[in-house]
Amino acid sequence: MSFKIINKDPQTNARTGELKLNRLTVKTPLFMPVCTNGTPKAVTFEILNNIGYEMIVSNAYHLFLRPGSEFIRKNFINLHKFCGWEKGILTDSGGFQVWSLGSLVKIESDGVIIKSHIDGKLNKLSPELSIQIQEDLGSDIMMIFDDCPKPDADYSHLLKSISRTKIWAEKSKKIKKTENLIFGIVQGGIYKDLRKISANHMIDLDFDGIAIGGLGLGEGAQKTYEITDDLCHILPLNKPRYSMGIGRPEDILESVSSGVDIFDCVVPTRNARNGTVFTFNGKINIKNSKNLSKNYPIDENCDCKACRDYSIGYIRHLFNCGEISAIQLMTECNLYFYNKLIEYIRFSIDNGTFIEYKKNFFERYFNE
Amino acid sequence: MSFKIINKDPQTNARTGELKLNRLTVKTPLFMPVCTNGTPKAVTFEILNNIGYEMIVSNAYHLFLRPGSEFIRKNFINLHKFCGWEKGILTDSGGFQVWSLGSLVKIESDGVIIKSHIDGKLNKLSPELSIQIQEDLGSDIMMIFDDCPKPDADYSHLLKSISRTKIWAEKSKKIKKTENLIFGIVQGGIYKDLRKISANHMIDLDFDGIAIGGLGLGEGAQKTYEITDDLCHILPLNKPRYSMGIGRPEDILESVSSGVDIFDCVVPTRNARNGTVFTFNGKINIKNSKNLSKNYPIDENCDCKACRDYSIGYIRHLFNCGEISAIQLMTECNLYFYNKLIEYIRFSIDNGTFIEYKKNFFERYFNE
Repeated sequence: MSFKIINKDPQTNARTGELKLNRLTVKTPLFMPVCTNGTPKAVTFEILNNIGYEMIVSNAYHLFLRPGSEFIRKNFINLHKFCGWEKGILTDSGGFQVWSLGSLVKIESDGVIIKSHIDGKLNKLSPELSIQIQEDLGSDIMMIFDDCPKPDADYSHLLKSISRTKIWAEKSKKIKKTENLIFGIVQGGIYKDLRKISANHMIDLDFDGIAIGGLGLGEGAQKTYEITDDLCHILPLNKPRYSMGIGRPEDILESVSSGVDIFDCVVPTRNARNGTVFTFNGKINIKNSKNLSKNYPIDENCDCKACRDYSIGYIRHLFNCGEISAIQLMTECNLYFYNKLIEYIRFSIDNGTFIEYKKNFFERYFNE
Repeated sequence: MSFKIINKDPQTNARTGELKLNRLTVKTPLFMPVCTNGTPKAVTFEILNNIGYEMIVSNAYHLFLRPGSEFIRKNFINLHKFCGWEKGILTDSGGFQVWSLGSLVKIESDGVIIKSHIDGKLNKLSPELSIQIQEDLGSDIMMIFDDCPKPDADYSHLLKSISRTKIWAEKSKKIKKTENLIFGIVQGGIYKDLRKISANHMIDLDFDGIAIGGLGLGEGAQKTYEITDDLCHILPLNKPRYSMGIGRPEDILESVSSGVDIFDCVVPTRNARNGTVFTFNGKINIKNSKNLSKNYPIDENCDCKACRDYSIGYIRHLFNCGEISAIQLMTECNLYFYNKLIEYIRFSIDNGTFIEYKKNFFERYFNE
């Protein structure tokens, strides 16, 4: 088994664990910064390394189109060496990008015809090709190629979608040649019965871990938490669970309570670019004019570069001038915050104080 | 005297020196990265510090308009503390920005009416206000408020301009209250006689140093070198000379030969954003498709982060994807190159090998 549970929280379903990858063992709960094109947005891998991140998520679809996954393997060996990132890499299969980028031309039984969002060229993505891409990249955790439905898909569409995902999951698993891990993906939208069927498909296929896909796409936080909690009651306890694209700090805490182990989300990097910084005392909108003359750091208790060396007023000025350095500093601050949050979560589970930590976090975070 | 010549090159007019500022002593020849809004473009001050830069150039006009120079003094003490940069700061007076940003509404005898390039508000900039701004910022070297003519101005316009600059230079010097240094600015376009008159105005006013303004604005490299060399024969040997906005590596080497001590230029940062990286073997256009599969650094002999950790092919991919991290890495590489270049120049002057260094540099740099 690649996954080992270290501690279980007595009052919730939260747990800490260790996930053994080929190149390293990572601690769970785990948060993975998003590095779609083979870089974090607005900072370099050095920053992720310094902060202490152990794993990132990248994307088969994007790297297949540019610069090419076979190209990476032939010229740079794998994605790790291409990027200069020796720690863990999980790659999404591209199923999500097919609709999120509006690239879908046609769904066929054995794959999807997509039109590149870069140059308009047509390509066929299939379970076989997606796994080939992910193996070319040397991904430590590959994802099956799923049929990721639109968030507003109806029941009958979703029913078809989970059947297709089951078949594609079988193919994905079968074609895999390397020792690297592969995770299944549960779909089924907001329908409990469909989610359950899809979960059982993935359980039957005995993947190294199981992801919950299609969440955080407008269904509302309560629905997200409900679906997550229901699924965590079905999914095997001894396999890692991964909530794809989740989430905000509050989403992570709720999902950890339900028993989710792995997360990735664009929020820390994207929100920095939009002017939002996270602190344990709540979010700060840097653009707010009340920040203009603040001659103290974003968070006095934070050790990130932005908080150590610069004031809110200065960073606001840079953001206001459209300076890239503002985005860098805020991105680093947010990534630092997310890493601290997940460290505190792990620490509190290991110490049996998770429920108190969660309560205290919410009090501070929402009472600013 | 704040300036001390350390070594003179026996075969050219190049010299090394030390310029004593209130907060530190800097070595010349000196290159100052441009930090118009109180930050280098696309990197943080930490990078400049790590590379070894001792001084930056910022801008009275920009900081007066946003966030306000009095605002900086009242809330953050000075520009150094606002930016977290404890080394040297030279501020340009704003004379250049009046026309370069198209802000000029009207020239009057005692100043210029400008329309803010940010919000369209009208302001009057004068020698008195410019020095007030620069003293609010705590600038280590202030520049006089000059009448910076358009590059295509005719002889009669330039004649008026140097007279006005003389009067404004007197006012600038008179109004100065602090112990910080102040430099005069020689104008006069491409006319030797006007340059000579303007130089003598500045010499008579006994500034701490003298800048050559209005160069590198389309007159052509040969003309730049000619005007620079002519002026260096007139300017006092015991005062530092500053070529404003100069230049490319070749411009710096030629100007040092003529006896220029101080430089600033947007080229290393701006060219990075346009996809050009500097190496001692010539410039590299990162966008060139021949760079796609290069699995080795921009410059194997360079110790900057971009060259130490990443390949040309990877950085090209990031640039191609529009990733900010590409701009960061290339900016750092170019700033590292410029600092090395100026270090090599100082070293070769001190060792009496400047002429060989210059020859060797040109051979390698232009023969790629």
